[in-house]
Amino acid sequence: MPMNEGPKHQTAPPLLAVADALDRILNGLVPSDTEICKLQDVRGRALATDIAARLSLPPAAVSAMDGYAVRAADCPAPGARLTRAGESAAGRPWNGSMGKGEAIRIFTGAVIPDGADTILLQEDASATGETDGATITVKEVPRKGQFIRPAGLDVSAGDMILTAGTVMSARLIALAISAGHTEASIWRRPNVGILSTGDELVPPGGTPGPGQIISSNATYLASFIAACGAVPIDLGIARDRPGAVLSCVRAAPAPLDLVVTTGGASVGVHDHIVDDLSASGTELGFWKIAMRPGKPLIHGRIDDIPLLGLPGNPVSSAVCANIFLRPAIARLSGADHHPQMIAARLAIDLKANDRRQDYLRATLDYDSQGRAVVTPARKQDSSMISIYAGANALVVRPPFDEARQAGDMVMVMPLDPLL
Amino acid sequence: MPMNEGPKHQTAPPLLAVADALDRILNGLVPSDTEICKLQDVRGRALATDIAARLSLPPAAVSAMDGYAVRAADCPAPGARLTRAGESAAGRPWNGSMGKGEAIRIFTGAVIPDGADTILLQEDASATGETDGATITVKEVPRKGQFIRPAGLDVSAGDMILTAGTVMSARLIALAISAGHTEASIWRRPNVGILSTGDELVPPGGTPGPGQIISSNATYLASFIAACGAVPIDLGIARDRPGAVLSCVRAAPAPLDLVVTTGGASVGVHDHIVDDLSASGTELGFWKIAMRPGKPLIHGRIDDIPLLGLPGNPVSSAVCANIFLRPAIARLSGADHHPQMIAARLAIDLKANDRRQDYLRATLDYDSQGRAVVTPARKQDSSMISIYAGANALVVRPPFDEARQAGDMVMVMPLDPLL
Repeated sequence: MPMNEGPKHQTAPPLLAVADALDRILNGLVPSDTEICKLQDVRGRALATDIAARLSLPPAAVSAMDGYAVRAADCPAPGARLTRAGESAAGRPWNGSMGKGEAIRIFTGAVIPDGADTILLQEDASATGETDGATITVKEVPRKGQFIRPAGLDVSAGDMILTAGTVMSARLIALAISAGHTEASIWRRPNVGILSTGDELVPPGGTPGPGQIISSNATYLASFIAACGAVPIDLGIARDRPGAVLSCVRAAPAPLDLVVTTGGASVGVHDHIVDDLSASGTELGFWKIAMRPGKPLIHGRIDDIPLLGLPGNPVSSAVCANIFLRPAIARLSGADHHPQMIAARLAIDLKANDRRQDYLRATLDYDSQGRAVVTPARKQDSSMISIYAGANALVVRPPFDEARQAGDMVMVMPLDPLL
Repeated sequence: MPMNEGPKHQTAPPLLAVADALDRILNGLVPSDTEICKLQDVRGRALATDIAARLSLPPAAVSAMDGYAVRAADCPAPGARLTRAGESAAGRPWNGSMGKGEAIRIFTGAVIPDGADTILLQEDASATGETDGATITVKEVPRKGQFIRPAGLDVSAGDMILTAGTVMSARLIALAISAGHTEASIWRRPNVGILSTGDELVPPGGTPGPGQIISSNATYLASFIAACGAVPIDLGIARDRPGAVLSCVRAAPAPLDLVVTTGGASVGVHDHIVDDLSASGTELGFWKIAMRPGKPLIHGRIDDIPLLGLPGNPVSSAVCANIFLRPAIARLSGADHHPQMIAARLAIDLKANDRRQDYLRATLDYDSQGRAVVTPARKQDSSMISIYAGANALVVRPPFDEARQAGDMVMVMPLDPLL
């Protein structure tokens, strides 16, 4: 077969839009099963169920300040005198009932005693001492009800405080704990197999022979996948021969929810992923996506496991991981990931774009007024891993975007600092 | 002693500016020691040394495209014919020397054969077959030198590719691996002890009695500290009695690089952290910081371990963790952390601010044009953990900031999605 007729297994239109490719990838993915996790262990993971508060916050009306719990009616004017009859501290409430003309010493977070309706700030009063029986003299008349936090001000028992699919942060964990929970039902971390392909690859630490390079994609993806909350599973390097991909996947040390390959997506005669996928049956997409870098992408199933075939070029592979793999892992984890797109002022001119959506490696800065300024790297060669490694954002240019000048606003996708 | 004379141990001016407090906190902190780590394990951690490339990238000149390695002089016009004399694939270079009138089939990433100076794209040629001896006919005349990536285009052996203090991301790990490294010298993760204080606290999962609340700060801080790359060490809950703080710290299961306490910083008579700190000697700062929430902060050393005393209120504690603890952990980890401040359009009016720097819990969104819009929560009561948990940003208002109207630009500190 002549080489110029294009890819052998093309099943999609010649150039697939990025959004369409993402839709198709996500469409086949669902989270598998759930597990009960202690809340301290769920940071970055998605809730499988809604969570309702078990407790009200605060559980009873409490003071917002240090001072005295009083009746406003007893404090009509500066000089009014009250008698200290007890003390309510956080964790040590006063259990009596406050009589007329009495004041209860109170501290922030302490329960409001029965009979009190107002907090007299300690700086708005003078006291003859710190013991019961002391005389408290009003200096500033309090507003009735001031500095009292009613029971349930923050959360009422039974309120839905978190919804299924929420990715838990430290602060959401704190909320769930405050509301009486210690654990939650969480979607299991997906197992994501990582398979590099190519005769040119030498494992990290090896010595490249003529024409060989160190394989960095697998380590990159393992770190990326772990940071996204999934479990990376190393499937090794498949060499360029028929059956190698299939046998590496079948030798996986754990059941896989997704297989990610790198390389083997170009039309060179040395690429066998597509043949292996065909041999393993079912669907197969060998896509040319309207994006730069990262045009070739394989999408299919291998032994009924969803497969995403990223380009072998490290920069293309990394960009595609951000665009396709991160949302895919989120979906398998029970969450949704939508990359944040922000407007930034261009620091340099850009020529008109062609029909591929461009992801320019760039540096995003904020000036002293907090305005975003983005500087695309001068060299955008997708083979240059140092440029990508040093970038903190991608300028996203739609297909056929017109020429842009320094000062124009463009859309930018910040790169996660850990990815 | 009357209660109205202010804190007992005040050693700093009545209201300390946030930036000054941070400077003083960071001033005493240095990373301790280093360890050699495998690169796959260093995501989020800071390099202790610079790293130079061991290998050049690419190690030899390679093709950027699929096609034929040729001499440009042999392709003067469409219709020129060449003879296929071999094949150079990624990982399988062609080791001969290309003669006049010859072409070497070549694939992306493959080494350029001796004698070739140009890549003729496969779509710019036709071939009578895929075996040596086939005739290659030029359809489009190539530009001399095109699609050749010279050796060292990306990185040259000996280039400094990473500097000490860099926090490693997946993409920087990939760069270091590509350049021939498998491990790096990394600052050890600091051990950060977490000690809650207060008689009102019930451990997570307990049943609060009258006046009690569930302790959420310790779990929040453990998750926060781990996400910042340090090792959280649970020191339990110190009750409100003299010596409790000291004995909890001394019972720590590991040597500590920092102790973080919550609570005990207000002027209530039930707070004993300050007394314990005094008893343990050395410096002691009991600060009132010009910020809201989070005015009271303790800074000192306990048994010569740096101590940061956050407020007991969960929201104040969390805000102070972002402002003070996160940079402190970065410093102890050999890195620097400067929170990103961005400009965003206010969605609502704000009254003039007083003398305290305000951190308003807020929702930061980007509109379809990528413009930042920020909506402060209607309730800013610092006791309301649900408001903080649901926020994704803080509007930072300097002291005495004038009244602002919807549409004005304000400075915003996005909250880390995991913190």
